[in-house]
Amino acid sequence: MTETAPDFAAITAAQARIRDRVHRTPVISSGLLNDVTGADVHFKCENLQKVGAFKARGASNAVFGLTNAQAAGGVATHSSGNHGAALAQAARERGIAAHIVMPATAPAVKKAAVAAYGGLIIECEPTLAAREQTLERVVAATGAHVVHPYADPRVIAGQGTLALEVLEQVPDLDVLVVPVGGGGLLSGVALAVKHLRPDVEVVAAEPEGADDAFRSFGLGALQPSVAPRTIADGLLAGLGAINFGIIQRHVDTILTVSDAEIVQAMRLQWSRLKTVVEPSGAVSFAALLAHPERFRGRRVVAVISGGNLDLDNLPW
Amino acid sequence: MTETAPDFAAITAAQARIRDRVHRTPVISSGLLNDVTGADVHFKCENLQKVGAFKARGASNAVFGLTNAQAAGGVATHSSGNHGAALAQAARERGIAAHIVMPATAPAVKKAAVAAYGGLIIECEPTLAAREQTLERVVAATGAHVVHPYADPRVIAGQGTLALEVLEQVPDLDVLVVPVGGGGLLSGVALAVKHLRPDVEVVAAEPEGADDAFRSFGLGALQPSVAPRTIADGLLAGLGAINFGIIQRHVDTILTVSDAEIVQAMRLQWSRLKTVVEPSGAVSFAALLAHPERFRGRRVVAVISGGNLDLDNLPW
Repeated sequence: MTETAPDFAAITAAQARIRDRVHRTPVISSGLLNDVTGADVHFKCENLQKVGAFKARGASNAVFGLTNAQAAGGVATHSSGNHGAALAQAARERGIAAHIVMPATAPAVKKAAVAAYGGLIIECEPTLAAREQTLERVVAATGAHVVHPYADPRVIAGQGTLALEVLEQVPDLDVLVVPVGGGGLLSGVALAVKHLRPDVEVVAAEPEGADDAFRSFGLGALQPSVAPRTIADGLLAGLGAINFGIIQRHVDTILTVSDAEIVQAMRLQWSRLKTVVEPSGAVSFAALLAHPERFRGRRVVAVISGGNLDLDNLPW
Repeated sequence: MTETAPDFAAITAAQARIRDRVHRTPVISSGLLNDVTGADVHFKCENLQKVGAFKARGASNAVFGLTNAQAAGGVATHSSGNHGAALAQAARERGIAAHIVMPATAPAVKKAAVAAYGGLIIECEPTLAAREQTLERVVAATGAHVVHPYADPRVIAGQGTLALEVLEQVPDLDVLVVPVGGGGLLSGVALAVKHLRPDVEVVAAEPEGADDAFRSFGLGALQPSVAPRTIADGLLAGLGAINFGIIQRHVDTILTVSDAEIVQAMRLQWSRLKTVVEPSGAVSFAALLAHPERFRGRRVVAVISGGNLDLDNLPW
């Protein structure tokens, strides 16, 4: 793995590579939500993506870009969320093993998803150090190829394919709102959008309780994520260095939202769009609700990044 | 209102009348749910219909089929559910009043939906006698035109338009599964399907706790609904006489499902299709889960009839 940022050609190459392996997800809208926001809002439904999240794009691009020699030992990652499931699913499609290091405290529903796609779960203590050490042991034992959840140019390029679809589906958009955690989706999407349509504003949305991207962007230097805490469990990861570099160049602004605003947005999406959105997936719409003046009268695409959550523990 | 059953021409006329007023809802599927059932299952998403339920079809057809003289006093109905909201929405579109008689015990979320569409809510005691008497008083006072939720040929014809779309969207289907409560949707759909494609099997799905259609169909005579009790609150109504006549002629079979099967089906649809289905809307899929041998290897369309429910009171 190289730490060089991908270029636009890597994104079009990713699109060709994964076209038959992931869904071209639909874009939906609601007159009532337009009334609520005062904007013309279109939702890109990555909750309807393979494995229920955009992560299928980057994982598929990484797995199917491996040479046979690279793929021989399978793939590995540490993940408590959707990337683990996506990597397991892509590996199964390619017919190779996927070793997924997960904290012992990960929700049963997340472990079940990884296992359902044939992933081999290796449990570890719930600390970043334990996760990384366990991953190293797995790699030493298996020769597996590591695919990082976001700080990987192949993953970034894969996530960027979402933007190519959005620009075709809503050609006259003014602004695209994307959630940011580790920055894989945001960096890939921003790179693609600004290459093709530099006039389109790219806005990131981040939970207040995990606002290292917001702070890093404002200060112009990567800031650590310290004790992040938010209901948007898919956005807890600290921003990647390679991702931050791209975000600095290509993102227009980062807005933060409270957990209460996330829950409100999620509930509105469930009840009005009749679509199941996980907390992280509602953060983009929460930014519209929390900062309406920025979006009023404009044509907006908000990315619903995923729809995986424990239906027994809803946040209301 | 006449109690004569509509013919096929009434359904095509309804389609022309409401085409620009209701959504042509999508059909979705899931490889995993195909694996679970052993069938090739397609879901017709009336939870994405205007007002979140198929009821928009029949209500729109009735309201926009009125002469100006008939419409002058507005429309009225008694409903504790989606028909009230649908009638209010259609009436607002036409610019006339909608008087909706609702039991005082109706869930706040249902009353809020009717009010949001501009319906005038008249509360009454939660008995059928009180509902009918209150409706009579409203009609006497306002001159409103009554649109029954299901025992009305205009409503039946409107609901039948769903079948015209399904036959275009899944042209090679083997069997169509439709929930039955009062029988408006089932009778309209069966009438249309058997006119165009008599080879397609029409299967009704009904909750065990409200199985008057199942009993009536088996005995060949309309049976009363006595103390119905099911989580599928949209299917509590007793089967209409006009609906039963059509169902006897055009429906192939009626299957019953338990509330536990309904909840299981609903949860699978939420988690795998990422779509919000109300209990009544999951009854068709519950029939597939409960009677898999009937559907194995066949191409099935199951109607998700609606997606309106109280997110604070989920049945798990």
